[in-house]
Amino acid sequence: MAEIDRMLQANEEWARRFPGSKPVRPARRVAVVACMDSRMPLFGMLGLEIGDAHVIRNAGGVITEDTIRSLTISQHVLDTREIVLVHHTECGLMATDDVSFADLVEQATGRRPPWAARAFTDVDDDVRESMRLIRESPYLLSHDVRGTVYDVGTGLLREVA
Amino acid sequence: MAEIDRMLQANEEWARRFPGSKPVRPARRVAVVACMDSRMPLFGMLGLEIGDAHVIRNAGGVITEDTIRSLTISQHVLDTREIVLVHHTECGLMATDDVSFADLVEQATGRRPPWAARAFTDVDDDVRESMRLIRESPYLLSHDVRGTVYDVGTGLLREVA
Repeated sequence: MAEIDRMLQANEEWARRFPGSKPVRPARRVAVVACMDSRMPLFGMLGLEIGDAHVIRNAGGVITEDTIRSLTISQHVLDTREIVLVHHTECGLMATDDVSFADLVEQATGRRPPWAARAFTDVDDDVRESMRLIRESPYLLSHDVRGTVYDVGTGLLREVA
Repeated sequence: MAEIDRMLQANEEWARRFPGSKPVRPARRVAVVACMDSRMPLFGMLGLEIGDAHVIRNAGGVITEDTIRSLTISQHVLDTREIVLVHHTECGLMATDDVSFADLVEQATGRRPPWAARAFTDVDDDVRESMRLIRESPYLLSHDVRGTVYDVGTGLLREVA
Protein backbone atom coordinates (compact mmCIF):
# COMPACT_ATOMS: atom_id res chain seq x y z
CA MET A 1 0.00 0.00 0.00
CA ALA A 2 1.26 3.50 -0.84
CA GLU A 3 2.01 5.65 2.22
CA ILE A 4 -0.65 8.17 1.21
CA ASP A 5 -3.30 5.42 1.27
CA ARG A 6 -2.25 4.51 4.82
CA MET A 7 -2.56 8.21 5.72
CA LEU A 8 -6.03 8.52 4.16
CA GLN A 9 -7.10 5.45 6.14
CA ALA A 10 -5.66 6.77 9.42
CA ASN A 11 -7.37 10.11 8.76
CA GLU A 12 -10.83 8.47 8.80
CA GLU A 13 -10.28 7.59 12.45
CA TRP A 14 -8.97 11.13 13.17
CA ALA A 15 -12.07 12.70 11.59
CA ARG A 16 -14.37 10.52 13.72
CA ARG A 17 -12.77 11.99 16.87
CA PHE A 18 -12.39 15.51 15.38
CA PRO A 19 -12.87 18.11 18.14
CA GLY A 20 -14.29 20.87 15.89
CA SER A 21 -13.04 23.87 13.94
CA LYS A 22 -10.95 26.82 15.12
CA PRO A 23 -10.34 30.37 13.78
CA VAL A 24 -7.72 30.87 11.06
CA ARG A 25 -5.73 33.34 13.24
CA PRO A 26 -3.32 31.49 15.57
CA ALA A 27 -4.64 31.86 19.15
CA ARG A 28 -1.16 32.23 20.68
CA ARG A 29 0.02 34.66 17.96
CA VAL A 30 3.25 32.75 17.40
CA ALA A 31 4.96 31.20 14.40
CA VAL A 32 7.35 28.27 14.84
CA VAL A 33 10.16 27.76 12.28
CA ALA A 34 11.59 24.23 12.51
CA CYS A 35 13.54 21.59 10.64
CA MET A 36 11.59 19.00 8.57
CA ASP A 37 13.19 16.18 10.63
CA SER A 38 10.86 13.19 11.10
CA ARG A 39 11.57 13.00 14.84
CA MET A 40 9.95 16.32 15.74
CA PRO A 41 6.18 16.12 16.40
CA LEU A 42 5.99 19.84 17.19
CA PHE A 43 2.47 19.94 18.64
CA GLY A 44 3.37 17.32 21.28
CA MET A 45 6.93 18.56 21.89
CA LEU A 46 5.87 22.17 22.49
CA GLY A 47 2.46 21.63 24.08
CA LEU A 48 0.56 23.17 21.15
CA GLU A 49 -3.17 22.73 20.63
CA ILE A 50 -5.01 22.91 17.30
CA GLY A 51 -5.25 26.58 16.29
CA ASP A 52 -2.38 27.82 18.48
CA ALA A 53 0.56 28.53 16.14
CA HIS A 54 1.79 28.63 12.56
CA VAL A 55 4.31 25.91 11.78
CA ILE A 56 6.91 26.56 9.08
CA ARG A 57 9.36 23.74 8.32
CA ASN A 58 12.15 23.08 5.82
CA ALA A 59 15.45 21.21 5.62
CA GLY A 60 17.45 22.56 8.57
CA GLY A 61 14.81 25.01 9.76
CA VAL A 62 16.88 27.70 8.04
CA ILE A 63 15.78 31.21 7.04
CA THR A 64 15.30 31.47 3.28
CA GLU A 65 13.28 33.81 1.09
CA ASP A 66 10.41 31.33 1.44
CA THR A 67 10.65 31.38 5.25
CA ILE A 68 10.48 35.19 5.18
CA ARG A 69 7.50 35.03 2.77
CA SER A 70 5.68 32.70 5.19
CA LEU A 71 6.52 34.79 8.27
CA THR A 72 5.47 38.01 6.51
CA ILE A 73 2.07 36.48 5.65
CA SER A 74 1.83 35.11 9.20
CA GLN A 75 2.36 38.57 10.70
CA HIS A 76 0.64 40.93 8.23
CA VAL A 77 -2.38 38.77 7.33
CA LEU A 78 -2.83 36.55 10.39
CA ASP A 79 -1.50 38.69 13.26
CA THR A 80 1.27 36.59 14.81
CA ARG A 81 3.98 38.51 16.68
CA GLU A 82 6.41 36.00 18.24
CA ILE A 83 8.79 33.72 16.31
CA VAL A 84 10.29 30.56 17.82
CA LEU A 85 13.07 28.63 16.04
CA VAL A 86 13.54 24.88 16.56
CA HIS A 87 16.74 23.30 15.27
CA HIS A 88 17.85 19.90 16.60
CA THR A 89 20.74 17.53 17.29
CA GLU A 90 21.90 14.93 14.72
CA CYS A 91 20.56 16.96 11.76
CA GLY A 92 21.01 15.49 8.27
CA LEU A 93 22.43 18.86 7.19
CA MET A 94 25.38 18.37 9.57
CA ALA A 95 26.26 15.09 7.77
CA THR A 96 27.02 16.78 4.44
CA ASP A 97 28.33 20.10 3.07
CA ASP A 98 27.12 22.28 0.22
CA VAL A 99 29.74 21.11 -2.31
CA SER A 100 29.41 17.38 -1.53
CA PHE A 101 25.64 17.70 -1.74
CA ALA A 102 25.75 19.44 -5.13
CA ASP A 103 28.16 16.72 -6.35
CA LEU A 104 25.76 14.01 -5.13
CA VAL A 105 22.76 15.52 -6.92
CA GLU A 106 24.74 16.15 -10.11
CA GLN A 107 26.04 12.55 -10.19
CA ALA A 108 22.54 11.12 -9.68
CA THR A 109 20.53 13.43 -11.94
CA GLY A 110 23.00 15.05 -14.34
CA ARG A 111 21.93 18.47 -13.04
CA ARG A 112 23.82 20.62 -10.53
CA PRO A 113 21.41 22.59 -8.33
CA PRO A 114 21.85 26.39 -8.55
CA TRP A 115 20.80 26.72 -4.88
CA ALA A 116 22.84 25.67 -1.81
CA ALA A 117 21.87 22.81 0.53
CA ARG A 118 22.47 25.18 3.49
CA ALA A 119 24.50 22.58 5.40
CA PHE A 120 26.01 23.64 8.74
CA THR A 121 28.45 22.30 11.32
CA ASP A 122 27.47 23.96 14.61
CA VAL A 123 23.78 23.90 15.44
CA ASP A 124 23.92 26.72 18.01
CA ASP A 125 25.71 28.97 15.50
CA ASP A 126 23.07 28.16 12.89
CA VAL A 127 20.29 29.13 15.31
CA ARG A 128 22.07 32.45 15.98
CA GLU A 129 22.49 33.05 12.24
CA SER A 130 18.76 32.39 11.75
CA MET A 131 17.89 34.88 14.50
CA ARG A 132 20.15 37.45 12.83
CA LEU A 133 18.46 36.96 9.43
CA ILE A 134 15.01 37.43 10.98
CA ARG A 135 16.06 40.58 12.85
CA GLU A 136 17.41 42.04 9.59
CA SER A 137 14.30 41.38 7.50
CA PRO A 138 12.62 44.67 6.49
CA TYR A 139 9.25 43.01 5.77
CA LEU A 140 8.33 41.78 9.25
CA LEU A 141 6.18 43.74 11.72
CA SER A 142 7.77 42.04 14.73
CA HIS A 143 11.35 40.82 15.11
CA ASP A 144 10.63 39.16 18.45
CA VAL A 145 12.55 35.91 17.87
CA ARG A 146 14.10 33.33 20.18
CA GLY A 147 15.85 30.12 19.19
CA THR A 148 16.09 26.59 20.55
CA VAL A 149 17.76 23.23 19.90
CA TYR A 150 15.77 20.00 20.37
CA ASP A 151 17.68 16.90 21.52
CA VAL A 152 16.28 14.01 19.44
CA GLY A 153 17.82 11.56 21.91
CA THR A 154 16.16 12.90 25.08
CA GLY A 155 13.17 14.95 23.90
CA LEU A 156 14.47 18.06 25.70
CA LEU A 157 14.31 21.56 24.20
CA ARG A 158 17.10 24.01 25.11
CA GLU A 159 17.15 27.76 24.42
CA VAL A 160 20.15 29.20 22.56
CA ALA A 161 21.42 32.45 24.07
CA MET B 1 4.72 34.94 29.90
CA ALA B 2 6.25 34.78 26.40
CA GLU B 3 4.89 31.93 24.27
CA ILE B 4 8.36 30.36 24.03
CA ASP B 5 8.52 30.14 27.85
CA ARG B 6 5.19 28.30 27.88
CA MET B 7 6.63 25.94 25.23
CA LEU B 8 9.82 25.31 27.21
CA GLN B 9 7.68 24.51 30.26
CA ALA B 10 5.38 22.15 28.31
CA ASN B 11 8.46 20.46 26.85
CA GLU B 12 9.69 19.39 30.31
CA GLU B 13 6.59 17.21 30.63
CA TRP B 14 7.11 15.86 27.07
CA ALA B 15 10.72 14.92 27.84
CA ARG B 16 9.64 13.02 30.98
CA ARG B 17 7.40 10.79 28.83
CA PHE B 18 9.86 10.69 25.87
CA PRO B 19 9.64 7.28 24.19
CA GLY B 20 13.27 7.17 22.97
CA SER B 21 15.26 8.07 19.88
CA LYS B 22 14.71 6.98 16.27
CA PRO B 23 16.97 6.85 13.16
CA VAL B 24 17.41 10.04 11.10
CA ARG B 25 16.07 8.32 7.93
CA PRO B 26 12.24 8.48 7.81
CA ALA B 27 10.90 4.93 8.37
CA ARG B 28 8.05 5.28 5.85
CA ARG B 29 10.27 6.97 3.24
CA VAL B 30 7.79 9.77 2.65
CA ALA B 31 7.93 13.58 2.74
CA VAL B 32 4.80 15.61 3.47
CA VAL B 33 4.53 19.16 2.06
CA ALA B 34 1.80 21.12 3.86
CA CYS B 35 0.54 24.60 4.66
CA MET B 36 1.74 26.28 7.90
CA ASP B 37 -1.91 26.65 9.04
CA SER B 38 -2.29 26.35 12.82
CA ARG B 39 -5.20 23.93 12.52
CA MET B 40 -3.19 21.07 11.01
CA PRO B 41 -1.48 18.80 13.57
CA LEU B 42 -0.04 16.57 10.82
CA PHE B 43 1.16 13.69 13.01
CA GLY B 44 -2.33 13.16 14.44
CA MET B 45 -4.23 13.94 11.23
CA LEU B 46 -2.22 11.49 9.11
CA GLY B 47 -1.47 8.80 11.69
CA LEU B 48 2.27 9.50 11.72
CA GLU B 49 4.60 8.23 14.45
CA ILE B 50 7.90 9.83 15.48
CA GLY B 51 10.50 8.99 12.82
CA ASP B 52 8.02 8.20 10.03
CA ALA B 53 8.12 11.16 7.61
CA HIS B 54 9.73 14.47 6.75
CA VAL B 55 7.40 17.42 7.22
CA ILE B 56 7.91 20.52 5.06
CA ARG B 57 5.55 23.45 5.67
CA ASN B 58 5.17 27.01 4.38
CA ALA B 59 2.43 29.55 3.72
CA GLY B 60 0.04 27.72 1.39
CA GLY B 61 2.05 24.50 1.21
CA VAL B 62 3.23 25.74 -2.18
CA ILE B 63 6.24 24.54 -4.18
CA THR B 64 9.05 27.09 -4.08
CA GLU B 65 12.80 26.82 -4.60
CA ASP B 66 13.07 26.15 -0.86
CA THR B 67 10.51 23.34 -1.03
CA ILE B 68 12.52 21.74 -3.86
CA ARG B 69 15.75 22.19 -1.83
CA SER B 70 14.14 20.40 1.12
CA LEU B 71 12.70 17.57 -1.02
CA THR B 72 16.02 17.10 -2.83
CA ILE B 73 17.84 16.71 0.52
CA SER B 74 15.03 14.42 1.74
CA GLN B 75 15.45 12.11 -1.26
CA HIS B 76 19.21 12.22 -1.98
CA VAL B 77 20.52 12.29 1.60
CA LEU B 78 17.75 10.64 3.61
CA ASP B 79 16.16 8.21 1.10
CA THR B 80 12.51 9.23 0.95
CA ARG B 81 10.64 8.34 -2.25
CA GLU B 82 6.98 9.36 -1.87
CA ILE B 83 5.69 12.94 -1.65
CA VAL B 84 2.28 13.81 -0.17
CA LEU B 85 0.83 17.34 -0.46
CA VAL B 86 -1.62 18.70 2.13
CA HIS B 87 -3.48 21.90 1.30
CA HIS B 88 -6.64 22.83 3.20
CA THR B 89 -9.97 24.67 3.18
CA GLU B 90 -10.28 28.29 4.43
CA CYS B 91 -6.61 29.08 3.73
CA GLY B 92 -5.35 32.58 4.57
CA LEU B 93 -3.85 32.72 1.06
CA MET B 94 -7.36 32.54 -0.45
CA ALA B 95 -8.33 35.70 1.52
CA THR B 96 -5.83 37.96 -0.28
CA ASP B 97 -4.11 38.29 -3.65
CA ASP B 98 -0.49 38.99 -4.56
CA VAL B 99 -1.00 42.70 -5.35
CA SER B 100 -3.14 43.47 -2.26
CA PHE B 101 -0.62 41.64 -0.09
CA ALA B 102 2.34 43.59 -1.51
CA ASP B 103 0.36 46.83 -0.96
CA LEU B 104 -0.34 45.82 2.65
CA VAL B 105 3.33 45.11 3.42
CA GLU B 106 4.50 48.27 1.67
CA GLN B 107 2.01 50.44 3.60
CA ALA B 108 3.06 48.92 6.93
CA THR B 109 6.83 48.73 6.45
CA GLY B 110 7.69 51.11 3.60
CA ARG B 111 9.18 48.19 1.66
CA ARG B 112 7.49 46.31 -1.19
CA PRO B 113 8.48 42.63 -1.16
CA PRO B 114 10.23 41.47 -4.35
CA TRP B 115 8.67 37.99 -3.95
CA ALA B 116 5.00 37.07 -4.45
CA ALA B 117 2.69 35.96 -1.61
CA ARG B 118 1.60 33.01 -3.83
CA ALA B 119 -2.10 33.61 -3.11
CA PHE B 120 -4.59 31.34 -4.90
CA THR B 121 -8.36 31.13 -5.43
CA ASP B 122 -9.06 27.42 -6.08
CA VAL B 123 -7.44 25.00 -3.66
CA ASP B 124 -7.78 21.93 -5.93
CA ASP B 125 -6.13 23.82 -8.80
CA ASP B 126 -3.30 24.88 -6.50
CA VAL B 127 -2.73 21.25 -5.44
CA ARG B 128 -2.58 20.25 -9.14
CA GLU B 129 -0.14 23.08 -9.88
CA SER B 130 2.05 21.90 -6.98
CA MET B 131 2.04 18.33 -8.34
CA ARG B 132 3.03 19.67 -11.77
CA LEU B 133 5.96 21.66 -10.31
CA ILE B 134 7.23 18.58 -8.47
CA ARG B 135 6.96 16.36 -11.56
CA GLU B 136 8.96 18.93 -13.55
CA SER B 137 11.82 19.29 -11.06
CA PRO B 138 15.08 17.91 -12.53
CA TYR B 139 16.71 17.48 -9.10
CA LEU B 140 14.43 14.85 -7.56
CA LEU B 141 15.08 11.10 -7.68
CA SER B 142 11.38 10.26 -7.39
CA HIS B 143 8.42 12.23 -8.74
CA ASP B 144 5.89 9.99 -7.00
CA VAL B 145 3.54 12.71 -5.74
CA ARG B 146 -0.13 12.75 -4.73
CA GLY B 147 -2.11 15.68 -3.38
CA THR B 148 -4.85 16.20 -0.82
CA VAL B 149 -7.07 18.89 0.70
CA TYR B 150 -7.78 18.86 4.46
CA ASP B 151 -11.16 20.18 5.61
CA VAL B 152 -10.42 22.28 8.73
CA GLY B 153 -14.13 22.14 9.63
CA THR B 154 -14.52 18.34 9.65
CA GLY B 155 -10.98 16.93 9.99
CA LEU B 156 -11.38 14.93 6.77
CA LEU B 157 -8.61 14.59 4.17
CA ARG B 158 -9.65 14.24 0.51
CA GLU B 159 -7.37 13.27 -2.39
CA VAL B 160 -7.26 15.58 -5.43
CA ALA B 161 -7.37 13.71 -8.75
